Amino acid sequence: MKLSKKNLDQKLDHVYDVIIVGGGVGGLSAAIYLQRYRLSCLVIEKGRGRSFWMQDLRNYLGLPPTTPGRTLLQQGQEHLLSLEGDYLAGYVEDLQDEGDTFAVKVKVGKKDSVYPVFRSKYLIAASGIIDHLPKFEDMQNVFDYAGYNLHVCMICDGYEMADKKCGLFVASEAAINTAFVLNWFTPYISVFTQGLFDVSPEMRQKLQEHGYPLIETPIQRFLGHDHEMNGVELSNGSVIELETGLIAMGSHYQSEYLKNLDLEWNGGNLKTDSMCRTTHPRVFAVGDLKEGLNQVSIAVADGTLAATAIWRDIRRQSSPRIWQDNLVGAAKT
Amino acid sequence: MKLSKKNLDQKLDHVYDVIIVGGGVGGLSAAIYLQRYRLSCLVIEKGRGRSFWMQDLRNYLGLPPTTPGRTLLQQGQEHLLSLEGDYLAGYVEDLQDEGDTFAVKVKVGKKDSVYPVFRSKYLIAASGIIDHLPKFEDMQNVFDYAGYNLHVCMICDGYEMADKKCGLFVASEAAINTAFVLNWFTPYISVFTQGLFDVSPEMRQKLQEHGYPLIETPIQRFLGHDHEMNGVELSNGSVIELETGLIAMGSHYQSEYLKNLDLEWNGGNLKTDSMCRTTHPRVFAVGDLKEGLNQVSIAVADGTLAATAIWRDIRRQSSPRIWQDNLVGAAKT
Repeated sequence: MKLSKKNLDQKLDHVYDVIIVGGGVGGLSAAIYLQRYRLSCLVIEKGRGRSFWMQDLRNYLGLPPTTPGRTLLQQGQEHLLSLEGDYLAGYVEDLQDEGDTFAVKVKVGKKDSVYPVFRSKYLIAASGIIDHLPKFEDMQNVFDYAGYNLHVCMICDGYEMADKKCGLFVASEAAINTAFVLNWFTPYISVFTQGLFDVSPEMRQKLQEHGYPLIETPIQRFLGHDHEMNGVELSNGSVIELETGLIAMGSHYQSEYLKNLDLEWNGGNLKTDSMCRTTHPRVFAVGDLKEGLNQVSIAVADGTLAATAIWRDIRRQSSPRIWQDNLVGAAKT
Repeated sequence: MKLSKKNLDQKLDHVYDVIIVGGGVGGLSAAIYLQRYRLSCLVIEKGRGRSFWMQDLRNYLGLPPTTPGRTLLQQGQEHLLSLEGDYLAGYVEDLQDEGDTFAVKVKVGKKDSVYPVFRSKYLIAASGIIDHLPKFEDMQNVFDYAGYNLHVCMICDGYEMADKKCGLFVASEAAINTAFVLNWFTPYISVFTQGLFDVSPEMRQKLQEHGYPLIETPIQRFLGHDHEMNGVELSNGSVIELETGLIAMGSHYQSEYLKNLDLEWNGGNLKTDSMCRTTHPRVFAVGDLKEGLNQVSIAVADGTLAATAIWRDIRRQSSPRIWQDNLVGAAKT
């Protein structure tokens, strides 16, 4: 059921089989499988994750390519509630490993917040990442285009950028190399650093050889209308026309609550085995937080894997169910 | 585009980047990704695969849990055609590795068949498995219930069998062990061997200890109405009431066309790396044909992985695209 300040007290004495931090596609897929394995789970979602922002989910089998990410999330949430899974809007503030259980402290409500502590045997980290966006005084100007024709994922949307004049927005020299993959889709690439870092002579040379302009002047704002970005205005007033854009400014990994656990990382990504189990036997990671492709299809499959591994663990520790009537019958004859 | 006898001649000189054998969920997912990576692919589908038979796809994120498998396949096919991928109804009869290309011979049409040969650089084996079903004189009696409340996949449908009187239909002693996993969902299990094999004294003992009847008499037919199986009639005329059933009689691996290739197998399953690449560098396997869980979500993610690995291969071998206008401009200054 949907938990809120009003009814969450009912679940404070319950030990869930699994608490899932993050109600994106990976977390919801795991939760649906877990409930179908007859395990109890709670999904805690802080809201507005990466898939929430996707305007068109163009590469997920079974949905029309114009389906917004939030439609997928809404369908998943309804599916979970129909299976009697629990769902709570809240932010995980702290996590303690108590040995057999985890204690998960959640901030619920922006005003008059309450801080309940829920418990579970297993934890699935499904809290994902959030892309860094260009920082402008007026952030609404960024939100007007991000997720429309200003993309954040080349694998998802390279196809949409094909042979178009594309701005590549980066915050590090390493990220400039994205241009030399993006050119599979389009050679009309302008690289924008906003002067955030120094570009080496070797990189300048390489960009020049490819014909990709390097623009280091800060950006004033994106230009366009109706969520269709068509250029940028620089701080010196000049305008550069574009038809699309790719933001490759890195990501924030939403994993602060995991800091007390002894887990193995590769940069911001959690290392996992083939069933999404981290180096902690009762902690799993799914989706963008773990190593691998950041794709909806991958996160959904990760949810399947993590839930199945947890079910196997719990099932193997349980007593077999006997058909008692037949034992009695057998004893009689 | 949709290929048929009428128009397939147009594509006989074309070397596809990838031919995908099997238009189930794994193959279609791969094809959608490949077309979005601006690669050309042909999906060859013989029809009536495993997902085609699923009446309700209850655990795939984003679709209502009453979505039939064929709706997912139909949506995927439309998606592929909208991306200008090619699709052909046909049966792959033979496959030859020509070094840089594969030659794929297809039987098209049940009557007046033609046998075109298509070529591609890469191959994705997505042809899956088909479950063995009980063999009755009147197979329609089996088809009336299979995929409804007579299930073939415990992970998918264990939840639907919860606490119900369940028939477990097996063709080997090893498969009887399914009962000791199925009892997570229900303890009311009757095991039907149809006398196809001898059951060891140890297994008889174990079943008895769990209270699970062992029925070795051949089955005459399933009983029920409106796709709702409610029991079996044995060849001796006696009737056993059931509320659901699980068929665990093994599977046919649809992989005959791969016999000429030097691939590594684990039983009927292809061994692959983490990107679904087999031990042949230009052959990938996705879905039920490879090792791992036989789930829609997994096959869809496999398609993502295989397509991405092939794109990386081809992209890395290609020349970078240059923005020529800017080179000329640079030379002028």
